[in-house]
Amino acid sequence: MSQDRLQALRGELKRQGVEAFLVPRADEYQNEYVPAADERLSWITGFTGSAGMAVISQREAALFVDGRYTLQGEQQIGDQPIELENLDGQAIAAWVCDQLREGQSLGFDPRLHTEPGLALLKKRLAERDISLRPLEQNPIDAVWRDRPQPPCGAARPHPLVFTGEHSSEKRQRIAELLAEKRVDALWLPNPESCAWLFNIRGDDIPHLPVALANGVLYRDGSATLYLAEQAIGEGLLEHLDHEVTLVSEKGQLFEDLRRRHVNKIWVDASISNCWTLQQLRDLDLQLLLERDPVIGAKACKNSVELAGSKAAHERDGAALCEFLCELPSAVQNGLDELSAVQLLYSKREEREGFRGNSFETISGYGPNGAIVHYRVSEQSSLTIKPESIYLCDSGAQYPDGTTDVTRTVALGEFPALARDHFTRVLKGHIAIATLRFPRGTCGEQIDAIARRSLWEVGLDYAHGTGHGVGSFLSVHEGPQRIGKMATGVALQPGMILSNEPGFYLTGQYGIRIENLVFVKESTDYIGFLEFEELTLAPIDRKLIDVELLTEKERDWLNRYHQRVREVIMPLVNDKTGQWLYGATEAL
Amino acid sequence: MSQDRLQALRGELKRQGVEAFLVPRADEYQNEYVPAADERLSWITGFTGSAGMAVISQREAALFVDGRYTLQGEQQIGDQPIELENLDGQAIAAWVCDQLREGQSLGFDPRLHTEPGLALLKKRLAERDISLRPLEQNPIDAVWRDRPQPPCGAARPHPLVFTGEHSSEKRQRIAELLAEKRVDALWLPNPESCAWLFNIRGDDIPHLPVALANGVLYRDGSATLYLAEQAIGEGLLEHLDHEVTLVSEKGQLFEDLRRRHVNKIWVDASISNCWTLQQLRDLDLQLLLERDPVIGAKACKNSVELAGSKAAHERDGAALCEFLCELPSAVQNGLDELSAVQLLYSKREEREGFRGNSFETISGYGPNGAIVHYRVSEQSSLTIKPESIYLCDSGAQYPDGTTDVTRTVALGEFPALARDHFTRVLKGHIAIATLRFPRGTCGEQIDAIARRSLWEVGLDYAHGTGHGVGSFLSVHEGPQRIGKMATGVALQPGMILSNEPGFYLTGQYGIRIENLVFVKESTDYIGFLEFEELTLAPIDRKLIDVELLTEKERDWLNRYHQRVREVIMPLVNDKTGQWLYGATEAL
Repeated sequence: MSQDRLQALRGELKRQGVEAFLVPRADEYQNEYVPAADERLSWITGFTGSAGMAVISQREAALFVDGRYTLQGEQQIGDQPIELENLDGQAIAAWVCDQLREGQSLGFDPRLHTEPGLALLKKRLAERDISLRPLEQNPIDAVWRDRPQPPCGAARPHPLVFTGEHSSEKRQRIAELLAEKRVDALWLPNPESCAWLFNIRGDDIPHLPVALANGVLYRDGSATLYLAEQAIGEGLLEHLDHEVTLVSEKGQLFEDLRRRHVNKIWVDASISNCWTLQQLRDLDLQLLLERDPVIGAKACKNSVELAGSKAAHERDGAALCEFLCELPSAVQNGLDELSAVQLLYSKREEREGFRGNSFETISGYGPNGAIVHYRVSEQSSLTIKPESIYLCDSGAQYPDGTTDVTRTVALGEFPALARDHFTRVLKGHIAIATLRFPRGTCGEQIDAIARRSLWEVGLDYAHGTGHGVGSFLSVHEGPQRIGKMATGVALQPGMILSNEPGFYLTGQYGIRIENLVFVKESTDYIGFLEFEELTLAPIDRKLIDVELLTEKERDWLNRYHQRVREVIMPLVNDKTGQWLYGATEAL
Repeated sequence: MSQDRLQALRGELKRQGVEAFLVPRADEYQNEYVPAADERLSWITGFTGSAGMAVISQREAALFVDGRYTLQGEQQIGDQPIELENLDGQAIAAWVCDQLREGQSLGFDPRLHTEPGLALLKKRLAERDISLRPLEQNPIDAVWRDRPQPPCGAARPHPLVFTGEHSSEKRQRIAELLAEKRVDALWLPNPESCAWLFNIRGDDIPHLPVALANGVLYRDGSATLYLAEQAIGEGLLEHLDHEVTLVSEKGQLFEDLRRRHVNKIWVDASISNCWTLQQLRDLDLQLLLERDPVIGAKACKNSVELAGSKAAHERDGAALCEFLCELPSAVQNGLDELSAVQLLYSKREEREGFRGNSFETISGYGPNGAIVHYRVSEQSSLTIKPESIYLCDSGAQYPDGTTDVTRTVALGEFPALARDHFTRVLKGHIAIATLRFPRGTCGEQIDAIARRSLWEVGLDYAHGTGHGVGSFLSVHEGPQRIGKMATGVALQPGMILSNEPGFYLTGQYGIRIENLVFVKESTDYIGFLEFEELTLAPIDRKLIDVELLTEKERDWLNRYHQRVREVIMPLVNDKTGQWLYGATEAL
């Protein structure tokens, strides 16, 4: 079947006069999660990971994925005539230069890329006289016969009891930044930014409770929101004040900017697609190309959002504990990775406000746990046995908060080395959890603190230590993160982050211990910040080598477990309560 | 007197038609240390720190220094009509915008600045229609009557027994990079790069054993070295092979480039002055603006250089131990900070190959120790008493290596808190010393590891944790460093770095523990790197709170002291030997 698709696409490329075509995993909103109608990369290669790029030329095809997805990419390509390559800045350019001759063109859909995202490739190709050509119609859409309809669910008001701040107040705050920068308007290409700024939510994207919308904020605090006509749902007009205009015709943006006499507009090129940027340039507008100020504002949760997150984490922790309590007997009765996902889902579903998973659950037993971004399928699902360890990374959306938690548990025997590895991961986790740091510190400056005890024995993990998390929004949210890569973004009070060091022994098992934390000011030391735990669930004591922990580390674990016991106990059934008592006993 | 100088300068500014003038602490080579003839900042403001900038306008004058130099700047300005301001990217621009009107000019000497160094200022001034004007003659030079002669000492061969690699081999290595980048030549504006590439040294700059030279390397490995006629000393012609041309007329550079048919030249704009860059542009040359490749090559010491550094550190450690041994009795007999500097110098002077200090010794008792970049003068010199602690940061140049070491010692009683502070600094020091880290790790990624135990109690230090160190070259050498600021430079085997966390209690005392280390591959863990100590001198046991150390930390200290004892004992007199025995006893 894939052969047919490749052939059809190649025919279309010939028709449009390009030698090759770039297929990202992206939609026009540059969302991390994309609607089914935008799963072009999966349609043409079979690869369903959250990041990757394919290049289809007349003769060859290649899928580029990063280290996280090498195993998955291999499996999902199967025996199709598609090469698997490592995704880095130079690899795509090198491959294209190898395939194309001088004077030929690589086509791309300008709605699916950003200019910074293409800059390096463009430069490299130009050196070889190969051009990067924007195509008006996406050639995959032209040949994709049963392409799903784009989503157009209703945009719903997200009430003040969860947001803690009126849209008008938020708009006023951001409008002040516009005045400072002397721009007339801010282009809001991102549905998450719109969701936060207008206090609206929707169901257009899997795992991400937003409506597909973008908008413009003007310097006076007024705004226009562009969204499909069907998306203008019940109560939306009443919810938004009179300063917000709803427009269902997206093309009207450019006319609106003219009508409002916009001369200079703030555009974040890293999240705005090339097509829109080009249109704005064609209007002869001055552009201020800086980071979307909404992103930084959204990242710092207010007290209402933090209280909501705490409440959501209590319910979520209770559901997770019920799952962890039932797991051993379920394994005894025969449980595979897929059924484990369903079991956990059923526990969360019972909890108030549950609105679905915040991402696809990672449920990996033994060797499957070692695949960092493993997604279980019917083909891959292993039976969970009491012979190795099981890694479960999951999260949920609740109107008061978004959760994301990983626990790695022993279900009986396990490989001897796992205890040492688990304890070193735990030491890294505790080192971050207990860290105090001065204001101005960026995530990249503290990342090594989580890795040090693994580095000590020549081990490491090939992913970041922490990512930002939204408030009933994306489970992966910027601008903050904790990782090796430089962000230049200082951690600030109110930011929610994951703390998730891990270790993966290919073919054997994976270990990850993940809690969400939020940044707060130190009460004892002026100018210093600390983390506070949001996630509440026991860390498997069976996997800990107490000898390897310092006294301070053991104290932290015992205090954490004490708190988990106190908060979660009243929320779970008797059987889980009994289990919880044992799981949180002091070490 | 300063009033007269300001007045004379203002007259000259008027004559040259600029409203104000920028005075950096820099020479045309962008050296960290500048010859006396280039101490213009000190001449006009009195400030002698190693970094700072003054702006003199017709009406006002301001000196901009960073946090390290606030106290010193205040003292050295005294009652002159010069404001002290904090040096940051925006401050100078703001001050100038405040002083100058639209259409007026701020003059600068294009030989003393780099383009990246001026970029932000230029942009800000342009927004206010104030121009930044290069002046052909430096207005200070025009009015500085007793200005010292520029140095022009001889350039001496630096033999293979210290460098371990012939100049021709080094040039071949770098020439390969030129071929890769498809440039015809590399401009070498920096005397340190020339010193390394041509295996020459000199005495033109205080503390930095280089001759004032710059040069060009061509793609075939041949080169031209530009230096004053008097600098072409004994044996230099024989030392350099026939592929190196010596030219004493600096202006000939541009003619040479034409004659050699250079079309594209590699220039590091961050170390090349604006004047040269403009001349190259005027020649219609294509410029490749990337980092000088010599800097990265020079940073990774070969086995001969590392062996030399070890040997130099043994002699240097012996001298320091003799000083530390005599210190208590000298203090009893009345010793001030200045005499302490002389005492230490006299100990080093006795050691083979000593060629002077590698920087001005920081000798700070009690409150003076809290001034991070304190330089003792007759006015500031305190008597060292057995009532507080004494910080001594010093280093030397030897033909086989450059040293830099800080020890903080108690001379009797000391404030109670100092022991806690010292031990936390020591914990940070040990954390870096014992760190194992994967290849690819940059200094900014491990800096926090040195700070964590101070952060724990809300403390920090306002300087980097480590800087690169040269091989009989600058004691501050790039590109590597360990600090909060992003460098993007991975630590590599052979790099020498300082490890120098500290803590400063204003008005009370300063603490710093500094060793030099070098990066080497881990023998046990493939792909991992470690540090090995170069510096050999006891760390004051009286200041350590053993309770605060983990067992591993105590083990490290005991092992380090054991090694110091074994290596240094045979090199010192009996009295120092006895002292050393006690100072290195296991804790």
